[in-house]
Amino acid sequence: MKIEHLGIAVKDLGLSNDLFEKLLGKAPYKEEVVESEGVKTSFFEVGESKIELVGSEKNDSAIEKYLEKNREGIHHIAFGVDNIEEEIERLKNQGFTFINETPKLGADNKRIVFLHPKTTNGVLVELCEDVK
Amino acid sequence: MKIEHLGIAVKDLGLSNDLFEKLLGKAPYKEEVVESEGVKTSFFEVGESKIELVGSEKNDSAIEKYLEKNREGIHHIAFGVDNIEEEIERLKNQGFTFINETPKLGADNKRIVFLHPKTTNGVLVELCEDVK
Repeated sequence: MKIEHLGIAVKDLGLSNDLFEKLLGKAPYKEEVVESEGVKTSFFEVGESKIELVGSEKNDSAIEKYLEKNREGIHHIAFGVDNIEEEIERLKNQGFTFINETPKLGADNKRIVFLHPKTTNGVLVELCEDVK
Repeated sequence: MKIEHLGIAVKDLGLSNDLFEKLLGKAPYKEEVVESEGVKTSFFEVGESKIELVGSEKNDSAIEKYLEKNREGIHHIAFGVDNIEEEIERLKNQGFTFINETPKLGADNKRIVFLHPKTTNGVLVELCEDVK
């Protein structure tokens, strides 16, 4: 297991790309729209992990709703795992609940699930596995 | 540069240690009180990074004040750098401002500074360098 990425909710992806390029001293290595989630994302490499900036691409996306109630900032942490089904099973047996139990396709060529923050100390936790 | 750790603000360090032990499948490798900050912390290894749980150890600590206004959750992201003075200088030249510009001693044997979240998209960013 590693920290695959850290998701940061932003209002204006262009402005935030410039800001994080200055902060991290490097440009994003890609931008990607995830139609199913209604978001546009950009990714910066930091060691073995990534910073993912997430902005809203359409009305009523989960990120737009999040930004109506919360300030911009760290939105979720994603752990990279080798076998997402095994990890889901392990965590269900430990009492964790999931927002979606069946992996769906996320940004950056990943199969992803989210745990419910009520069972994880208020932290929105994503598990992700590389699509083979 | 790498993600050295991710700091998570928690109300009850004991309960949260149990929770993150289940989530990550491993126990914290250490607990540490940082008297100067009035916090108690625990650390879990995740790949090249760490998860740091941060609870309040005394009244009016920064974490206690944070938890009066915010829910438990991700509190800060710390980037590990080789030369903290050089990095502070680089970021000042880029227009970032700091909560403290002079490195102070933090948990886990580190010299640390915090950038002001007003200049970093609402994200509380720490820089840290191993004490030699």
